[in-house]
Amino acid sequence: MTTLDPALAAWFDHHDQRLHDDLFAFLRIPSVSARSEHRADVAAAASWLHGHLARIGFATQTIPTAGHPVVLAEWRQAQPGAPTVLVYGHYDVQPPEPLELWTTPAFEPTLRDGNIYARGSVDDKGQLWLHVAALEAHLAARGTLPVNVIVLAEGEEEVGSEHLAPFVEQHRQRLACDAVVISDSTMFAPGIPSILSSLRGLAYFQIDVTGPASDLHSGMYGGAVVNPAMALARILATFHDATGRVAIPGFYDAVRPFPDAVRDGMRRLPFDEPDFMRQLGVASLGGEPGYSTLERLWTRPTCEVNGMLSGYTGEGAKTVLPGTAMAKVSCRLVPDQDPAVVHRLLESHVRAVAPAGVTVTVRALHGGQAWRADLAGPLYEAAARALTAAFGRAPVITGEGGSIPVVNDFARLLGAPILLVGFGLPGENAHAPDEWISQDNFRRGMRAIAALWDELAAAGA
Amino acid sequence: MTTLDPALAAWFDHHDQRLHDDLFAFLRIPSVSARSEHRADVAAAASWLHGHLARIGFATQTIPTAGHPVVLAEWRQAQPGAPTVLVYGHYDVQPPEPLELWTTPAFEPTLRDGNIYARGSVDDKGQLWLHVAALEAHLAARGTLPVNVIVLAEGEEEVGSEHLAPFVEQHRQRLACDAVVISDSTMFAPGIPSILSSLRGLAYFQIDVTGPASDLHSGMYGGAVVNPAMALARILATFHDATGRVAIPGFYDAVRPFPDAVRDGMRRLPFDEPDFMRQLGVASLGGEPGYSTLERLWTRPTCEVNGMLSGYTGEGAKTVLPGTAMAKVSCRLVPDQDPAVVHRLLESHVRAVAPAGVTVTVRALHGGQAWRADLAGPLYEAAARALTAAFGRAPVITGEGGSIPVVNDFARLLGAPILLVGFGLPGENAHAPDEWISQDNFRRGMRAIAALWDELAAAGA
Repeated sequence: MTTLDPALAAWFDHHDQRLHDDLFAFLRIPSVSARSEHRADVAAAASWLHGHLARIGFATQTIPTAGHPVVLAEWRQAQPGAPTVLVYGHYDVQPPEPLELWTTPAFEPTLRDGNIYARGSVDDKGQLWLHVAALEAHLAARGTLPVNVIVLAEGEEEVGSEHLAPFVEQHRQRLACDAVVISDSTMFAPGIPSILSSLRGLAYFQIDVTGPASDLHSGMYGGAVVNPAMALARILATFHDATGRVAIPGFYDAVRPFPDAVRDGMRRLPFDEPDFMRQLGVASLGGEPGYSTLERLWTRPTCEVNGMLSGYTGEGAKTVLPGTAMAKVSCRLVPDQDPAVVHRLLESHVRAVAPAGVTVTVRALHGGQAWRADLAGPLYEAAARALTAAFGRAPVITGEGGSIPVVNDFARLLGAPILLVGFGLPGENAHAPDEWISQDNFRRGMRAIAALWDELAAAGA
Repeated sequence: MTTLDPALAAWFDHHDQRLHDDLFAFLRIPSVSARSEHRADVAAAASWLHGHLARIGFATQTIPTAGHPVVLAEWRQAQPGAPTVLVYGHYDVQPPEPLELWTTPAFEPTLRDGNIYARGSVDDKGQLWLHVAALEAHLAARGTLPVNVIVLAEGEEEVGSEHLAPFVEQHRQRLACDAVVISDSTMFAPGIPSILSSLRGLAYFQIDVTGPASDLHSGMYGGAVVNPAMALARILATFHDATGRVAIPGFYDAVRPFPDAVRDGMRRLPFDEPDFMRQLGVASLGGEPGYSTLERLWTRPTCEVNGMLSGYTGEGAKTVLPGTAMAKVSCRLVPDQDPAVVHRLLESHVRAVAPAGVTVTVRALHGGQAWRADLAGPLYEAAARALTAAFGRAPVITGEGGSIPVVNDFARLLGAPILLVGFGLPGENAHAPDEWISQDNFRRGMRAIAALWDELAAAGA
């Protein structure tokens, strides 16, 4: 099957205006999870979603947490042997401020130049809604779904998903599934459907260098006392070799290389490096030799200074020999690097290179594993076919240099393969004024997801 | 002459109590130059000093400046051919706060355990007063002085001597002299008279590294964008080689080595290195190889980081790839290094080692030449004999790692040799609560300076 089932296609065509109207109604609810004055609005968005899922035939519950509630909806009447999928999304949104920078108000959805503008249009109400619409299409056009479906929508994604992992852990059995599907990301470029196949992990440290018991006069003591700021600079300078490769012994040992096919695909992406540099305001890029910019961002681990502080940093000159120096340093990780192992490696390395005369400590502040999809499974094959049907071209495989913590939670707690298929676009202004989703992507997204369930059932995943 | 003239010695013995009483009266005036509410007290101290100098026979003027006045007193009736000496000191003092840490009040001079406690006791009223007492001794006991004397006392030393250099420049002819003598420093240790023979200069810079136009997300961009903080660390790490020697090409080219005799003398000083480390709270020292700690502090140039700032420096973890990084860096200089030349050398070096992908600027914030006495002249020989007469042992030669800007001003504007002979002691609490001067040093200091004028006249300097 390489085209969308005609019955579903006709249903989408026929209900296009109503699906837009419903989305606009959802977007009008200012469900800002970060603001206590919007608590009732967040609840209203949950209730709106609950009502719609119940109406289309899902057994729906709104389950309180210590924060905002989870909307959990289930439809388990597929043929025996049909796979069960879990769709995750979030109904809360970022605060809209600064309001004066919006062309039209954040909570008055507006169609302009083929894009739907509103807070939450792409992150994530629009992408959550297109999933619900795809489910409705099946149930309305055919009276059934080819797969069992669990919809899990949280209201705290924009404030850190504090209660999601405990929720998933608590309802582990009930949430057991064969696939997790999440649409909360972007396509590589307009017209290019994309599967996000990897996220980097993180190991974040604070390095403290302590020298003399107090700041000293750099005239009276300079030249005989080891300077903690200079010691820190010399330590940090050993973290990479001259080529840009991380030089912490053992750092790359656990790295499982990305498959050649993925790397080749990334190299073929229409990436406009001069434009990338222009956007960042830099004259040249850097990084580990032997890898393209996208590979460096998506597939390779890093070691970065996030912050540095020592001595006098105000205006003018103060002749102080600082007593201490501090750096925040973080490593982005790839499979199968472990944050705790990286901590040990970094600590040994720092201990080996630190000069006498200062004390150096390396404290781990935060850590998380990387995630990478095994693209060989039936889920990804089904997704490729569904996206091809909806967009008229095969999807590309992308990566993401940052982390999405819930993905690790699902991977860890549910053990099912995870499909990250998003319909946003670069420049979509998620978290910024004038957030938008492409109307074309919204329409194709609904159809792609509807096709996905057929493809997945056919693949017998 | 290796002992003090008996007539002078007798005069000092006979007037000991009165000299103490006068010093205590001088110390009672809270001449805090930094505080506008003490403006009248500063003027009162100038007036007190003026009155005393006039009374002993000096032609005295109090000359206003845009800040606090200069007291200028002259006695020019020495034998034809006698040298003219300029004595510099300051009658203003540091603020006394925090008051609660004083054992006895800052402006109620108290003799305790052989020390005179009061704000200004050592810095510098006590040391200025012992000069005036030595002049009085000559004039009272013999009716004459063996040298012509100019006393120049300012009231702004503790607030930066802003108006002193212009004053000296303006009165250059009148202040012309064969020697400048300043007592505003310390002896190496109790019982060891000391001549301070060198001061280091300073070349202070700010280094700014600029990368991307704004801070970036270290997940999304880390690994492909040159990190300004890491670039700065790598630049700073090139400033020294592995041994601790400054590795900026050309940095040592202009350095004129200290005479072997001075170095040998410094090595023989009873310097307690373990105690020095204990005081600083460090387990080991560092610095340029081939030099002792005192040589490193007094005779060798340095390159130190005074401050460093980049990215996120608050609590916890923030995954930012900083857009900029800044370091304050200063070099202590020795003769004949020039701050402007050091600026050029540093700038070329930084340009040579800076990675592509960031922009680096080196801005000079402040600079001053080093100063070093030519210890071979009659002034120093006379001083050595006078100190030996007063303290019963030959003086040692010390250095100072910091700068005393007025010394450079005198050297530049008057061209005369400068003798820095101080009677303070380590731990004297200048600028801190419980400032003190040793009563023994006060007495021996008066006698040493009185002897100095005889020695200088005898040497025919």
